[in-house]
Amino acid sequence: MLDFRPVFLVIGALLSVLGIAMFIPALLDLGLDDPAWRVFATSGCVTLFVGGGLWMSTRGNKVEFSLRQAFMMTVLSWVSLAAFGALPLYWSGTAPTYTDAFFESMSGITTTGSTIMSGLDQMPAGVLLWRGILQWLGGLGVIVMAIAVLPMLQVGGMQLFQAEAFDTAEKILPRATQISSGLTSIYILFTTLCGIFYYMAGMNVLDAVIHGMTTVATGGLSSHDASIGYFQSAQIEMIAIVFMILGSLPFILYIQAVRGQWHKLFLDSEIRTFLLFLALFVPIVTYYAVRFGGEEGLEGMRHAAFNVVSIMTGTGYSSTDYTAWGPFAVGFFFAIMFIGGCQGSTACGLKIFRIQVMYKTMKQHINRIVFPHGIFVKRFNGIPLGDDVSAAVMSFFFLYFVSFMGLGILLQLTGLDFVTALAGAGTVIANVGPGVGDVIGPAGNFQPLNDVAKWLLSFGMLLGRLELLTVLVLFMPRFWTE
Amino acid sequence: MLDFRPVFLVIGALLSVLGIAMFIPALLDLGLDDPAWRVFATSGCVTLFVGGGLWMSTRGNKVEFSLRQAFMMTVLSWVSLAAFGALPLYWSGTAPTYTDAFFESMSGITTTGSTIMSGLDQMPAGVLLWRGILQWLGGLGVIVMAIAVLPMLQVGGMQLFQAEAFDTAEKILPRATQISSGLTSIYILFTTLCGIFYYMAGMNVLDAVIHGMTTVATGGLSSHDASIGYFQSAQIEMIAIVFMILGSLPFILYIQAVRGQWHKLFLDSEIRTFLLFLALFVPIVTYYAVRFGGEEGLEGMRHAAFNVVSIMTGTGYSSTDYTAWGPFAVGFFFAIMFIGGCQGSTACGLKIFRIQVMYKTMKQHINRIVFPHGIFVKRFNGIPLGDDVSAAVMSFFFLYFVSFMGLGILLQLTGLDFVTALAGAGTVIANVGPGVGDVIGPAGNFQPLNDVAKWLLSFGMLLGRLELLTVLVLFMPRFWTE
Repeated sequence: MLDFRPVFLVIGALLSVLGIAMFIPALLDLGLDDPAWRVFATSGCVTLFVGGGLWMSTRGNKVEFSLRQAFMMTVLSWVSLAAFGALPLYWSGTAPTYTDAFFESMSGITTTGSTIMSGLDQMPAGVLLWRGILQWLGGLGVIVMAIAVLPMLQVGGMQLFQAEAFDTAEKILPRATQISSGLTSIYILFTTLCGIFYYMAGMNVLDAVIHGMTTVATGGLSSHDASIGYFQSAQIEMIAIVFMILGSLPFILYIQAVRGQWHKLFLDSEIRTFLLFLALFVPIVTYYAVRFGGEEGLEGMRHAAFNVVSIMTGTGYSSTDYTAWGPFAVGFFFAIMFIGGCQGSTACGLKIFRIQVMYKTMKQHINRIVFPHGIFVKRFNGIPLGDDVSAAVMSFFFLYFVSFMGLGILLQLTGLDFVTALAGAGTVIANVGPGVGDVIGPAGNFQPLNDVAKWLLSFGMLLGRLELLTVLVLFMPRFWTE
Repeated sequence: MLDFRPVFLVIGALLSVLGIAMFIPALLDLGLDDPAWRVFATSGCVTLFVGGGLWMSTRGNKVEFSLRQAFMMTVLSWVSLAAFGALPLYWSGTAPTYTDAFFESMSGITTTGSTIMSGLDQMPAGVLLWRGILQWLGGLGVIVMAIAVLPMLQVGGMQLFQAEAFDTAEKILPRATQISSGLTSIYILFTTLCGIFYYMAGMNVLDAVIHGMTTVATGGLSSHDASIGYFQSAQIEMIAIVFMILGSLPFILYIQAVRGQWHKLFLDSEIRTFLLFLALFVPIVTYYAVRFGGEEGLEGMRHAAFNVVSIMTGTGYSSTDYTAWGPFAVGFFFAIMFIGGCQGSTACGLKIFRIQVMYKTMKQHINRIVFPHGIFVKRFNGIPLGDDVSAAVMSFFFLYFVSFMGLGILLQLTGLDFVTALAGAGTVIANVGPGVGDVIGPAGNFQPLNDVAKWLLSFGMLLGRLELLTVLVLFMPRFWTE
């Protein structure tokens, strides 16, 4: 039998943080004389009460995790954060049903950015801030998880980065706390800088704070229906591009850079490949947007750059309705959505390093076929790549595809049309946000979907954010019996 | 520098066979007093002249292939067969342009079954017969290639079946001829039986011959616009189901069965999994067709069974427009299209054994993660699966996905809409035939597409039929320089 005590201890602590965070929008609403402050204060008390209770009743135990406890902890943390994060959205009436509130909250905490809300421009300030805070906390959680937890769980080849974070890799929590303060500082620094730049570029304080948080988290929830397009500002889009990219690079390298190892940031093969992809894709989309999409030269490039970065990093802001550019743009954005950013960042998707590992594995395989007497070694960042990492990454890729297809089929079974179902499945598993088509495209939102579809999509966000395997192992009978 | 002589020798021989085959429709048209016989006779002479010339000028050389020559031979054979097979379709005016004729011919020889033709019911008999012959020859070629050539090329994990076919595996052609007479006999036997059953079930002789050939080849070209649906006969559909399945099983096991090893046919894990998939999918689709698609109970089951078998085996006959059943049916058929049949058969797609290998690799990987101290061995048909096979299969899967996405994007770039482009890319790479949507769905055809799209789709058929890698290695610079 699994011992749930250390799991509940962590969840208790996390929920307490979430509960405390709810007092921030409460204070804002109180200051603005908006009666909604009561909702946030109540939700905060409830969450703090449950979280504190869990924590109090389990503390004093040794905080050590077996592998299976670590899996449990990771999945349950995200689910309970989403469940409690939904409370203020539900109780304030902003989300008409708890399903909607849970969808929005899961979309926040997983940094997806799909929304069921419209009329954001008239929404109470507290609610908008809360969505931003959810994404911000989610982004931070993802980085800590990716650096401190996933390498031990060896999920999808993450063992590649085990040595980078720690010398030995036995106990999860102590090292997580040790490293997470450094990560948190850098994350706060980026967010602050991003917010200040936004403010200087003309956003009001609230917008600057919210967008600062959802940019660095590559989340993409905005306080305006028109997303970043609302501001019609090249400056703001430029700032967003820079900080979306910063949010998509391996945060561990920032820590190493602070410690003086700047060169690692410039020599990292994953970062280079990521930037190479961007440098390739932006001109292609620019060409198409100008040639077929009716965009003007420089403005076309600006829109192309913004949307390529936004979709590929899984942020999901839009500055313009790129689906109006024509079928190629739709397909292209659909494809790059799956790529994502670097590991150990707030970005999601398959991740650059997995594409590199797959490419290198395939190249070695083909070379071996054609030149049976040659010797071909595959390397990643100079380190030889073991066959176990290849198998892990390829399993991940397979699962990703199967989950995408499976979710797409289930969504169709609930009555969604072909395009909405496939685009929805893709966008939530890649944690991007907007889909494709009339309903859930950049100009629409997820409100019209049925309840079952919303729960399925919420599950898809969780799957994508926790790198599939972490969630799916819980469905193995053997996980529970042994 | 590559020595092309043995390559040309084989192509010369194959073209000669193709040229001779052209005299069959010529004779038919002559008998029917259709002046089109001249076209077939001329095409036959031209093809025989070129093929014979190649053969004469290169014979006397040793028929031994290096790996690279084998790759060249395989790809060039299919391309030249398609190019010459297109001649009668072009010269008879049945296909308005050579692009159309090449598309149709490639669709035939790769057993895809996508067509640019409509008004089949009024088409000259010779042309209809020729399309059938192309698919039939293609199906035979595929089996011989899969058993005699691909295991040596180690394409996509086919090395798993090396031992099955031969004891040692050094020289390709002698063993190919040794084994191919047995395969040809069984292939002819199945085709004859299928045709006779069709005839007994009410088809006329020509229809029976054509459908007999395109059923066993799991090709799917029909002599009627309404495909098998034209006959409105449960009996005919049943016969088709049986022979499509027979065409999708490993032909090498038939040879072993003839030699007395019947048990292998029943114990083969790939066959079992294939049949298990069918047994799972048919009830699901039946339920949906009856519940949401407006089908009647038993008839719904009949249509479900027929279309599941037809799509999954990559045949592509349709007995009814299943896209009218609703979005789930569309998505489901789109998904199972990629699965395909067993290796060493006329079926295409990812193939069952690859899905098994991927599943086993993933299972081992997950077990190893969750139970680091356990020992997990993966087996296929009782034989331990090496990591090299896993890597090969996973590379194949990755390439399959990348080719599908890449082709989908290129097709959109030519102006195709999202659904047509993705469905078209999927259906040609899986060698199924019909796509999804208004244009290329089961009720439409590929004629309205632009020329570039038709060439791209023809390339996609080649890619899919030759298991991707065989074609793609030719694009490696190193292939040519070393």
